[in-house]
Amino acid sequence: MTDLANKVLKGDRLALSRLITHIENDFQDHHTILDQLFPHTGKAHIIGVTGPSGSGKSTLVNRLALNMVGGKNRKSSHKIGIIAVDPTSPFSGGALLGDRVRMRDLTGNPDIFIRSMASRGALGGIARAVDNTALVMDAAGFEIILIETVGAGQSEVEIARLAHTTIVVEAPGLGDDIQAAKAGILEIADVLVVNKSDKAAADGTAQTLKAMLAAGEELRAQSDDNLHTNWQVPVIKTSALNGDGIDDLAAVVNAHRTFLQEGGEWKIRSTARLRALLECLVRDSLYDAWNVPANQVKMQKILWLVANHTCSPFQSVRDLLK
Amino acid sequence: MTDLANKVLKGDRLALSRLITHIENDFQDHHTILDQLFPHTGKAHIIGVTGPSGSGKSTLVNRLALNMVGGKNRKSSHKIGIIAVDPTSPFSGGALLGDRVRMRDLTGNPDIFIRSMASRGALGGIARAVDNTALVMDAAGFEIILIETVGAGQSEVEIARLAHTTIVVEAPGLGDDIQAAKAGILEIADVLVVNKSDKAAADGTAQTLKAMLAAGEELRAQSDDNLHTNWQVPVIKTSALNGDGIDDLAAVVNAHRTFLQEGGEWKIRSTARLRALLECLVRDSLYDAWNVPANQVKMQKILWLVANHTCSPFQSVRDLLK
Repeated sequence: MTDLANKVLKGDRLALSRLITHIENDFQDHHTILDQLFPHTGKAHIIGVTGPSGSGKSTLVNRLALNMVGGKNRKSSHKIGIIAVDPTSPFSGGALLGDRVRMRDLTGNPDIFIRSMASRGALGGIARAVDNTALVMDAAGFEIILIETVGAGQSEVEIARLAHTTIVVEAPGLGDDIQAAKAGILEIADVLVVNKSDKAAADGTAQTLKAMLAAGEELRAQSDDNLHTNWQVPVIKTSALNGDGIDDLAAVVNAHRTFLQEGGEWKIRSTARLRALLECLVRDSLYDAWNVPANQVKMQKILWLVANHTCSPFQSVRDLLK
Repeated sequence: MTDLANKVLKGDRLALSRLITHIENDFQDHHTILDQLFPHTGKAHIIGVTGPSGSGKSTLVNRLALNMVGGKNRKSSHKIGIIAVDPTSPFSGGALLGDRVRMRDLTGNPDIFIRSMASRGALGGIARAVDNTALVMDAAGFEIILIETVGAGQSEVEIARLAHTTIVVEAPGLGDDIQAAKAGILEIADVLVVNKSDKAAADGTAQTLKAMLAAGEELRAQSDDNLHTNWQVPVIKTSALNGDGIDDLAAVVNAHRTFLQEGGEWKIRSTARLRALLECLVRDSLYDAWNVPANQVKMQKILWLVANHTCSPFQSVRDLLK
């Protein structure tokens, strides 16, 4: 076993940071280290937290982490890893510091490890980097891993698929009801949160979401899809600002973990995550093996023909790979 | 040439709808038809419109389309295609109808063609489907193609890369300034719009965005990246609700087109789009060729071992492809 893998297994934070940097930059050696860490994974509860900009996700993640990490006056205590996925900005040369600023309550806590990840690079790349980062945090002994994603795009849905439990955060007044639905993430929610419950419109938003869930349940009851039939998606009102509802949220998240483990769903979700990982690895390996200089030259010639509209891209690629 | 390709080239809307459905469902025959249509493409101005939920993008796209389509009292008139990318919802069995409701001013107009696309399916799949849809609209004679995406996730950034001109829409009061930056899409903007200019906070939001752009310009001036150096990203205030600023926006979008065409950037962006398309096609073809029943059986065995933590996924895939 490499020195780095050994240190990560012992919970060495500096080693963990370094390994995640290797993952982010797709350094050659990180697969070997992940091979060594893999047998030590599979224990962590992976929780996705997603929702639109301005819903207060970062502050909520902060509160939830502080609640779940426990402490001297609490019955249980957990080591918690946080992965914050921010889109790249050229203004900062990487992820912006916003979340880190808001998460300053957490830094310095030896049981909490925070990592911001930029979503630069190839499509799909971020989901894989997040997956691998969760894997090494798991190996390093973090029992709960919170993955915070901004926006409601497809990469977020993809990241949600990595999670055992997905929390979707909405806030009152962020566009109309249709916007909430357009966020398109109701269907991936195991827990719905209406944050900023101090706002007047919070009750209305919660009611709307409950009605939409009920409508969805009815549709699902008529279909073959019985994925969620035994889990009633709760709608929790929280105020990340003053801490209201955070205890409820933590309790519901724990209840969902128990539900997954007792019903066999835990294994199903973990296996689905691994299946997606295997497929990604196969796709990448096949392309890497193909992408040798001789083929790169051919590709460049084709690009020239296609850009001049002399050949169709579809026909060209068929000919190339024949 | 197939009958369907012929009809699409003649601008037959029913044929166009049918072909896009083939693209969405990845039917076998659509690559052959795209081959036939490809020589007739490359003329359309592809415009991406993106921004957070609640910024009023749909209404803005509606207004912009009505402005640019022209009519009997206008000097120029264009045929306009609109592609609205909505996340899937199981509540509706597909994309929600929100955009379509708001776009009712446009339906019935023979020079406007609207298509909603759900972002279901494999990661990266939606970007490719949108790209192919833009391609067939281009072949069908639509001179301007507006692609509206929700959220600020990576798939949106990917779709923006497909566009010649990317309009990023912000609205006052959608979270704090850091949220606006976190939307992570400032760097992809060719045109910035502060919509809902009737709101009091609009001027402040516009000032903040201008300051951020100026800071970004300074950083870029010091770096090697000279992609945007000759194009000053304008900040336009609009009210999609009452139509303020829409003329300005249309003028700026046209100016950007001229800028691209005169400076050679048009060709560069088109070629970059085609390069990405070729790489996707190669990746998919390689995987499809590999994904035969014999390999599927091997994959299933590996999945079982990996799910039981007997083998590492990375080592397993290396062994599998050796």
